[in-house]
Amino acid sequence: MEKGTLIKEGKAKRLYHTDEDGYVWVEYMDQATALNGKRKDHIVGKGVLNNQIDTMLFKMLMDNGIHTDFVKQLSDNEQLNLTVDIIPLEVVVRNAASGSFQRKFAVPYLQKFDHPVVEYFYKSDELDDPAINTSQALALGVIKPGESERLQELALQINDLLKARFAKAGLELVDFKVEFGKKADGEIILADEISPDSCRLVDLETRDSFDKDVFRKKTGDLVTTYQEVLNRLNDSQEEA
Amino acid sequence: MEKGTLIKEGKAKRLYHTDEDGYVWVEYMDQATALNGKRKDHIVGKGVLNNQIDTMLFKMLMDNGIHTDFVKQLSDNEQLNLTVDIIPLEVVVRNAASGSFQRKFAVPYLQKFDHPVVEYFYKSDELDDPAINTSQALALGVIKPGESERLQELALQINDLLKARFAKAGLELVDFKVEFGKKADGEIILADEISPDSCRLVDLETRDSFDKDVFRKKTGDLVTTYQEVLNRLNDSQEEA
Ligand SMILES: Nc1ncnc2c1ncn2[C@@H]1O[C@H](COP(=O)(O)OP(=O)(O)OP(=O)(O)O)[C@@H](O)[C@H]1O
Ligand SMILES: Nc1ncnc2c1ncn2[C@@H]1O[C@H](COP(=O)(O)OP(=O)(O)OP(=O)(O)O)[C@@H](O)[C@H]1O
Ligand SMILES: [Mg+2]
Ligand SMILES: [Mg+2]
Repeated sequence: MEKGTLIKEGKAKRLYHTDEDGYVWVEYMDQATALNGKRKDHIVGKGVLNNQIDTMLFKMLMDNGIHTDFVKQLSDNEQLNLTVDIIPLEVVVRNAASGSFQRKFAVPYLQKFDHPVVEYFYKSDELDDPAINTSQALALGVIKPGESERLQELALQINDLLKARFAKAGLELVDFKVEFGKKADGEIILADEISPDSCRLVDLETRDSFDKDVFRKKTGDLVTTYQEVLNRLNDSQEEA
Repeated sequence: MEKGTLIKEGKAKRLYHTDEDGYVWVEYMDQATALNGKRKDHIVGKGVLNNQIDTMLFKMLMDNGIHTDFVKQLSDNEQLNLTVDIIPLEVVVRNAASGSFQRKFAVPYLQKFDHPVVEYFYKSDELDDPAINTSQALALGVIKPGESERLQELALQINDLLKARFAKAGLELVDFKVEFGKKADGEIILADEISPDSCRLVDLETRDSFDKDVFRKKTGDLVTTYQEVLNRLNDSQEEA
């Protein structure tokens, strides 16, 4: 397969056409942003790390029956994905309080929930990604009847699998964000990425952050932190 | 029944004990507030009007099978209600875009929805009544499993009945807010009030506002407007 012209440059990835229909060539960039893109840093090594971590996690999910857009790794910082119509919702799953939830509801940092919380944010740069509920998303035509139930079901399955995988690596999965897309045949599958950019992870013992919060809060070095996540995932990988 | 000591003074009503357990004496006040209470006006006649309108609407709902906290009217500005444990959610139903929905999602004023939108706001003065979704409300212990489904079902039934009733009075029900409470036996019933304070109504022909928006936006006289709503409801009342 050949890399074609640029389709889209996001904050973390560049998407390119390929010479075959239905596939997208994804390049993980050496860039980190915070405050919805207002702060933007060039960070050598980040693209390679996120590509490895994302690949490992998507493969694990696929081994456990989750359908995804992942096709194969192409290089250190590139992978081939199925082209999907991204559903413009950031689907957030929370196992404990942090970030916007903690601010909005004034609960203590890392307070555990009995059941995971699922939230949607409407992906809209003009509107600044507002929180949206199921019936609002239906009214705005963002989703169709029944799709919210499916998204929640998939998000919770993914949560269970990721939580267990990170626990083996000594990390607690506090929360994460995923995106879903529709294949040409209408099936809703997991798309985009899962990496320390989109997960909140804390060490099971020390409670130190192992995710983008070290960049957001300037409490640590991003590359060192993401490398440690990758090492721990590698070290806890089961033999085939 | 005798009026007892004050339990609580809200922005629109005073609640008093009675000499019999399980009942609350409600006094509709001559007061209107906006901007979450930051603006507060004394408005002679408002209490009487809202008490009449609320009584008429709650009776209509009860005639149609909705269980409520309404017991009887006691005077021009007072009524007797069942005491309930208020579920701390403002349940909002929208048939068309206005207010916070319009601002949040940048859709045109009064744009119709194919299906009504249901939203929850968490009644918390400290948190400034934030929007909350079902899974957040469950995680915070605000509701129990299954209760969100029941609240939505009741809210939509009430919407259908109110919409039809206001249409007979030449008014379109744009949106409204209700509160629900639990009786001693655990049943969830409609509580609090339904009035032009908590509904958005526009004339079916002229699209003029007939609700608290005339006060919020200072576009008209509140008492004249609420009196017109009451007159129209009275004039369109069916003979027994
Ligand atoms: N398989 C796919 N097919 C099509 N688009 C995809 C796929 N996977 C991810 N995308 C989209 O690629 C874009 C680039 O990713 P990146 O993470 O850099 O974006 P972003 O800066 O987070 O912007 P956005 O706000 O759009 O998510 C995103 O819009 C994402 O939704
Ligand atoms: N049947 C009832 N039993 C107990 N409490 C009730 C009942 N009906 C209404 N209430 C409560 O009475 C209080 C006073 O009503 P009012 O509308 O004046 O309050 P408010 O200023 O809107 O304040 P809030 O933010 O608490 O709703 C409200 O807290 C309301 O939830
Ligand atoms: Mg992204
Ligand atoms: Mg009130």
